[in-house]
Amino acid sequence: MAAPVAESSTMYSVSIIGASGYSGAELTRLLLQHPKVELQKLYAFSQAGKRVSDLYPALCCNNVYKPYCGESGSDIYFLALPHGEALQLVPALVAAGKRVIDLSGDFRLKSALEHEQFYKQPKSPESVMTYGMAELFRDEIVRAKAISNPGCFATSIILGVAPLFAGRESGIKVRAINCTSTSGISGAGRSSKTELSFSEMSENVRAYKVGVHQHIPEIMQALGTSATTPSFDFTFTPMIGSLVRGIYSILNVQLEESADAEGIKKLYREFYLNAPFVRLRDTMTEVRHVTHTNFCDIHIAHASASGSMVIVTAIDNLLKGAAGQAVQNMNLMLGLDETTGLSF
Amino acid sequence: MAAPVAESSTMYSVSIIGASGYSGAELTRLLLQHPKVELQKLYAFSQAGKRVSDLYPALCCNNVYKPYCGESGSDIYFLALPHGEALQLVPALVAAGKRVIDLSGDFRLKSALEHEQFYKQPKSPESVMTYGMAELFRDEIVRAKAISNPGCFATSIILGVAPLFAGRESGIKVRAINCTSTSGISGAGRSSKTELSFSEMSENVRAYKVGVHQHIPEIMQALGTSATTPSFDFTFTPMIGSLVRGIYSILNVQLEESADAEGIKKLYREFYLNAPFVRLRDTMTEVRHVTHTNFCDIHIAHASASGSMVIVTAIDNLLKGAAGQAVQNMNLMLGLDETTGLSF
Amino acid sequence: MAAPVAESSTMYSVSIIGASGYSGAELTRLLLQHPKVELQKLYAFSQAGKRVSDLYPALCCNNVYKPYCGESGSDIYFLALPHGEALQLVPALVAAGKRVIDLSGDFRLKSALEHEQFYKQPKSPESVMTYGMAELFRDEIVRAKAISNPGCFATSIILGVAPLFAGRESGIKVRAINCTSTSGISGAGRSSKTELSFSEMSENVRAYKVGVHQHIPEIMQALGTSATTPSFDFTFTPMIGSLVRGIYSILNVQLEESADAEGIKKLYREFYLNAPFVRLRDTMTEVRHVTHTNFCDIHIAHASASGSMVIVTAIDNLLKGAAGQAVQNMNLMLGLDETTGLSF
Amino acid sequence: MAAPVAESSTMYSVSIIGASGYSGAELTRLLLQHPKVELQKLYAFSQAGKRVSDLYPALCCNNVYKPYCGESGSDIYFLALPHGEALQLVPALVAAGKRVIDLSGDFRLKSALEHEQFYKQPKSPESVMTYGMAELFRDEIVRAKAISNPGCFATSIILGVAPLFAGRESGIKVRAINCTSTSGISGAGRSSKTELSFSEMSENVRAYKVGVHQHIPEIMQALGTSATTPSFDFTFTPMIGSLVRGIYSILNVQLEESADAEGIKKLYREFYLNAPFVRLRDTMTEVRHVTHTNFCDIHIAHASASGSMVIVTAIDNLLKGAAGQAVQNMNLMLGLDETTGLSF
Repeated sequence: MAAPVAESSTMYSVSIIGASGYSGAELTRLLLQHPKVELQKLYAFSQAGKRVSDLYPALCCNNVYKPYCGESGSDIYFLALPHGEALQLVPALVAAGKRVIDLSGDFRLKSALEHEQFYKQPKSPESVMTYGMAELFRDEIVRAKAISNPGCFATSIILGVAPLFAGRESGIKVRAINCTSTSGISGAGRSSKTELSFSEMSENVRAYKVGVHQHIPEIMQALGTSATTPSFDFTFTPMIGSLVRGIYSILNVQLEESADAEGIKKLYREFYLNAPFVRLRDTMTEVRHVTHTNFCDIHIAHASASGSMVIVTAIDNLLKGAAGQAVQNMNLMLGLDETTGLSF
Repeated sequence: MAAPVAESSTMYSVSIIGASGYSGAELTRLLLQHPKVELQKLYAFSQAGKRVSDLYPALCCNNVYKPYCGESGSDIYFLALPHGEALQLVPALVAAGKRVIDLSGDFRLKSALEHEQFYKQPKSPESVMTYGMAELFRDEIVRAKAISNPGCFATSIILGVAPLFAGRESGIKVRAINCTSTSGISGAGRSSKTELSFSEMSENVRAYKVGVHQHIPEIMQALGTSATTPSFDFTFTPMIGSLVRGIYSILNVQLEESADAEGIKKLYREFYLNAPFVRLRDTMTEVRHVTHTNFCDIHIAHASASGSMVIVTAIDNLLKGAAGQAVQNMNLMLGLDETTGLSF
Repeated sequence: MAAPVAESSTMYSVSIIGASGYSGAELTRLLLQHPKVELQKLYAFSQAGKRVSDLYPALCCNNVYKPYCGESGSDIYFLALPHGEALQLVPALVAAGKRVIDLSGDFRLKSALEHEQFYKQPKSPESVMTYGMAELFRDEIVRAKAISNPGCFATSIILGVAPLFAGRESGIKVRAINCTSTSGISGAGRSSKTELSFSEMSENVRAYKVGVHQHIPEIMQALGTSATTPSFDFTFTPMIGSLVRGIYSILNVQLEESADAEGIKKLYREFYLNAPFVRLRDTMTEVRHVTHTNFCDIHIAHASASGSMVIVTAIDNLLKGAAGQAVQNMNLMLGLDETTGLSF
Repeated sequence: MAAPVAESSTMYSVSIIGASGYSGAELTRLLLQHPKVELQKLYAFSQAGKRVSDLYPALCCNNVYKPYCGESGSDIYFLALPHGEALQLVPALVAAGKRVIDLSGDFRLKSALEHEQFYKQPKSPESVMTYGMAELFRDEIVRAKAISNPGCFATSIILGVAPLFAGRESGIKVRAINCTSTSGISGAGRSSKTELSFSEMSENVRAYKVGVHQHIPEIMQALGTSATTPSFDFTFTPMIGSLVRGIYSILNVQLEESADAEGIKKLYREFYLNAPFVRLRDTMTEVRHVTHTNFCDIHIAHASASGSMVIVTAIDNLLKGAAGQAVQNMNLMLGLDETTGLSF
């Protein structure tokens, strides 16, 4: 890792805005254990007045949720709000000189057009922040003041194919990617929808938002192209299954020409040489291999003479797909070792 | 079975009021397949206008839910409404000469006092109907025009201990019963509560309403005593676990005196001699043994010299605990074989 | 349906060889309820001597499993054996004039070479039987004496894309299909493998046999091409998830040219006009929509201007993917209505 | 806590014998993160030669399992072996001056007679060690060299009722306890039994060993009585449900006389005043509140005028019920803070 590691014993104060959802709760857990930060305030409008330990008894935290009213007394702010709500809050925090890590989709897309198309919400063209995927953009993150944390599906897909795009100089050219990703139901948030009840989702699988999921433009942007004028054919089918945590992505890749399987594996090894949270696996990975960790496991399951490949990735949607990656980004911004507080 | 079996080819018309919940959907499925009835109307206020197959695609039924407005054109009416709502509707249907089977708790308790205490709802003192548990009250059911269908927990508990009470002349006297019952989450109905979401209930167990569940007075009444002045000590702890269907009850019974284990088994065999849906098992039963059936499995797991017994029962909460038992009652009321349309 | 429907009250005797696995148990359940057959013998080597109801209490069947020793006293034989075992038994049964439906892969592939490559077992070159997928080969099935019942994954995939191949005269040409299918764990059989234990598979997803699954040549053969010299690019990634029953397939199809979405839907409607067990859905399908039914649900989820499509299919792996389809085939062979005994 | 807390930076070397089962894997995870120990050897006969990370990829540990051949080079040995196997190994380790914590049942019972009756294995009469339940026997543990770690069910039950026995001087006398405990399936170990497969245990509940479970004498002994001549009536019904981790116990207690509910709660508060891992809850506890923690949650759900009580407890069977409690014991033996390495 190129990131300089701080030797000092500095402690940073952090607060979470939108702390009562599942990502907020995971952030709370991680930050309570983090050796370099002190968790100050937990803001949550809908749960204001309740203790954290009432809502999440496993957390053993006596803080009381409060409504956020513009405070800026902490060094660092994490925002884990529904899409659209961070848009209002981030500029003031940045202006106040705070470091900000936003877990929503509000600041991920450079194209205002694509944002409006996929999020059905308007945004100003300049509302974009550094995209917090350390494995691709570590240097920018180290220098950033404000980070837009990647989406969970996007993380599992981008990490699975990014080396193929970095390797263009080596002659690899992607013609098509078909992604099918199974997510744990916690990805839908702390919800009271009938369709997410145990009685409806036990022993079930359901696809949704086929071809229209908001992570599509995010993935295309991170891979150096766009959803509007894509440089390769792309389909994405998200599914939820009978599990709480995890994302399991099957990435069907069609290259323009056949490629040597060993050469591809070498490319991946080099690309992730300094990535402590990416594990290239020689054998099949499973969701349970990464649950409750910040790892992204990647396995190249198939690579044929015709240039057709199947790549399998697994992450914990609440950790590498949300709170864990957010803390990883914070570590880099603060000059700490990337893995601080994240070795489970 | 004492019930006279009709030879005729008469078809009866039936309708369901409150057809869109889980019990209503199971009733729909059973009645669609029943050889002696024709399903006419499916009433459901909240889902009015939707097709059955939109809400329950497995059912393959093109009927459209309608709001109930006092119609009485069918021979038989099943009511599967939230507690309190049948109280208004049943008297008019009975007055119109219809056969009625009500799956709610509205007409189960003879004691208005206990009804108010456990249901937190007033009721008129005369609003009691024949209690539809064929294994205990077959003769009354055969003659009845209106049936109050038992509660799901109550069914699994009453059937597990009823022979001990019938056997009083043989010297058996019960001192105490402690029940612990695990229910599938469908027992809470088609719900949108966060606490019943997959993310909250997967890999979980939770007790609730300990000592105050509304089935307590129902159980006591069926066993010939009352919750107010009980003839034995009784506790009941209902739980929900990570399953959709089924109730599994552990009945800890303390007799006044020791009893011969073989004598007890003989008592059970005789009591259930003509009960086609009760299976006395020599080996341990499990929820999966009864899921999607109308059976109640009973296993006497332990009987000690000190008169302490452990009895295990299993039912499908939506079938023997609701819709299946309701159809069993209808069969008896119509003079059909008790098992018509219920052999899965 | 073209199949002539028998009016007679003939009853056929049937036996199952390999009756103690999950497919055998589903067959047992279906045949016990079937109005036109009498279930005679249940053969199962490993469970010989046990009662059916001891192994499957829900079945309520007192038959005792016996080892199969060459008997041929029934009219019809179902074989639900591990791959390789039917190869020995079928010829004698056919020679004895029996109707045979084999659920294994032993007789599915015309190419002995592909059989050896994918099953790792030799087979004699002439050992192929009529492929029992009624929606594609109804006329052959009606005339057949011996049927090879399709594989579960193969069923969910072939039915999802078959109309595209039938429609070649209308100018549709498939360039590539990438399939990702999630199966219930019962698909692995009644197993004692650690990797299939509840502790390993709860809240998990795992891919396996990527690119080498034995259903690949079966699918290609049914679609009119072959795994050895395919007419389109094909990848298949099977997965198991945290569910017992069901297969959910995401079929990413790339056509040679763009195709009108409405035209494609029309093509599917016409292709499945007389298929009582295929349901074309306008909204997303889910595993739970088809569990415990013989339906295959198909939903065209996405069809882009570039000719890229996403088709979603759902079946119950033990019914439409095994025992249900087998009974459907038996019905056709006997001249019965295709749906006899299969309307749940 | 009375235990003196070491200020020193001493590091202890530890090894695990029987490291490849679920308890062994949890121990591995805990000890890898523990700030005061260095994990040296991982012994596992059946998995010898495999890397830890091959069997448990989430652990990220490159150690290789070895067969244990009498080595004694570490300061501390944990044994997580099947019942009966530690009996041979512990005496030599103790003789070599090692600290030993045994997670099996081999050394828990003082009565050789009860050991033989419940474990069906003979044992030498002197083979008893300090019973490692800190909340009851902290002082003995601090001074001990060898600890017998409590059983998982036993932990969840003993902690739930222990204050009632400590409170005898205050006039409380227990007449009967009926326990019903639901365990996660990991409690059965890393198993390949068909009856523990996902297909058999999903959506299921099953009781077993009713009245004969080996934790019965352990519970009675810890409560100051014995299974052979009990001072109160006791039944215990263990169950497994559709969850991997956790034990949820419903304790039906009958006191000799009625007791003041507030007085009982005060008794519990005082008893657990210095117990950092016991949480007395005013509201209902659930399995998920304690999963992945070392807590035992206790909720007094019901206390009637007749002296009948319902107490609900929840633990993680692999942590407080096994590996977590073992590390808690190690901490006490080493003079460390009881919670070192155990705050999740």
